[in-house]
Amino acid sequence: MRRSERIVRLTRTLMNHPGEPLSLTDMADQLDAAKSSLSEDLAIIREVMDEDGEGTLRTQMGAAGGVLFEVNVAWAKAREFLERAIVRLSQGERILPGGYLYMSDLLAEPDVLRMVGKMFAKIFSPMAPDLVLTVETKGIPLTVMTAQYLHRPFVIARRDHRVTEGSSVSVNYVSGSDRRIQTMSLSKRSIKQGARVLIIDDFMKAGGTVKAMSALLNEFEANVVGTGVFMETAEPEGKLVSNYVSLLTLSQVDEMRQRVMIEPGNYLKEST
Amino acid sequence: MRRSERIVRLTRTLMNHPGEPLSLTDMADQLDAAKSSLSEDLAIIREVMDEDGEGTLRTQMGAAGGVLFEVNVAWAKAREFLERAIVRLSQGERILPGGYLYMSDLLAEPDVLRMVGKMFAKIFSPMAPDLVLTVETKGIPLTVMTAQYLHRPFVIARRDHRVTEGSSVSVNYVSGSDRRIQTMSLSKRSIKQGARVLIIDDFMKAGGTVKAMSALLNEFEANVVGTGVFMETAEPEGKLVSNYVSLLTLSQVDEMRQRVMIEPGNYLKEST
Repeated sequence: MRRSERIVRLTRTLMNHPGEPLSLTDMADQLDAAKSSLSEDLAIIREVMDEDGEGTLRTQMGAAGGVLFEVNVAWAKAREFLERAIVRLSQGERILPGGYLYMSDLLAEPDVLRMVGKMFAKIFSPMAPDLVLTVETKGIPLTVMTAQYLHRPFVIARRDHRVTEGSSVSVNYVSGSDRRIQTMSLSKRSIKQGARVLIIDDFMKAGGTVKAMSALLNEFEANVVGTGVFMETAEPEGKLVSNYVSLLTLSQVDEMRQRVMIEPGNYLKEST
Repeated sequence: MRRSERIVRLTRTLMNHPGEPLSLTDMADQLDAAKSSLSEDLAIIREVMDEDGEGTLRTQMGAAGGVLFEVNVAWAKAREFLERAIVRLSQGERILPGGYLYMSDLLAEPDVLRMVGKMFAKIFSPMAPDLVLTVETKGIPLTVMTAQYLHRPFVIARRDHRVTEGSSVSVNYVSGSDRRIQTMSLSKRSIKQGARVLIIDDFMKAGGTVKAMSALLNEFEANVVGTGVFMETAEPEGKLVSNYVSLLTLSQVDEMRQRVMIEPGNYLKEST
């Protein structure tokens, strides 16, 4: 096999398996190549990914040698992405009765979801989560993509108890968006004791929903290792949760004058 | 730039943008390469993807030349994947009271979701859908991944009307799983008249839920161009919808004897 063909296959495998440790021996077998050639190929890929800020390639040499590709998003690209999102989300016609902001279309675009998934994966990968947790419904796509890039499974808490989930554990909470008492439940089978859990959601106002997810995890004796939200609101300033990462901050929705004000969230502060 | 480095970057770009037409001129600019070199590189990538059954690279030459990478899954790999899924889903401890089958864990694994997304994208790509539709909750992850590989946005119908979606259209329907009248609603902003829509869901019994999605689309004067479900049940044989693709068929759940029988769905029949 020519080097160029091997490089296509290696790059494809790494891109298909971000966050997943891959065995060098298996790869050498599949490509019918010597490990030494493979190491040279991987060195080229590592250099390119590094230079472009697209990912980090970690290799462990030796008999049980492996390689792990972790996605990266350059800070400049993250900033550019957030600025474009702000322009699009600030359109007055997105304001819904009650001062809500319509953003379901944006959070359903393949490029947006891929970028958000990579941005969360980049920032939370060092916390080594075992799984990602969200509550239905709008946080699910962000969770699916984040979990893809971290190569971790996810769990979806339900707002009602469903027969198809088996026995479950429930908590009650007050959500800021709906201002009513709600129930959130999680299948007993879904989380193991001691699990390291990353919480992802689309929107956070006071933080009641995220706090409820955290309370649910307590019931499972699992640990929150990070919380990421796509958008938080500037008010109230004092949230029910601390230590979260937000991509955007909604600082004002003026229904009367059809004005929306959005700023980058605290995500970019991690760059300094 | 060395050819090997260019090939890493090209392969990465194609893998990051399945289903999306990419401009040759833009790529040549970004890589600071002549279009002729690029064409040679793309020929190598095309050959490898073809040979491995991992994707098709379509190129349009000329001034407005472009390249489009469509994911593929070799039939043998699809069959192997389904067989492994059957073994895992046939475990007796998955049976829940009422004869339901617990499969949330499987449908939350990154590798499973990636594979299902690719399998649906492969089969529905020729129908050229404009978007993918599902109803909350468990079909969402499959929908997100299918939409990624098709490079299309998706829309999530809600089981209740949410303030954050704006004005919406609703239909009532009877779901086979819950045997009660339910409501399904879709934001008025979400679908344009004449849109070509692919319906995806996790589970189909009689087909009431899928039929309701189709009825909703009628209200938008949009067209169903395909329907894909992860699992259908063998009974009832006569479904409320025709022309759907299923990956698996659940033929028996015996609560007493803790036995589950699952077979490949009609997906593999497309291979003959």
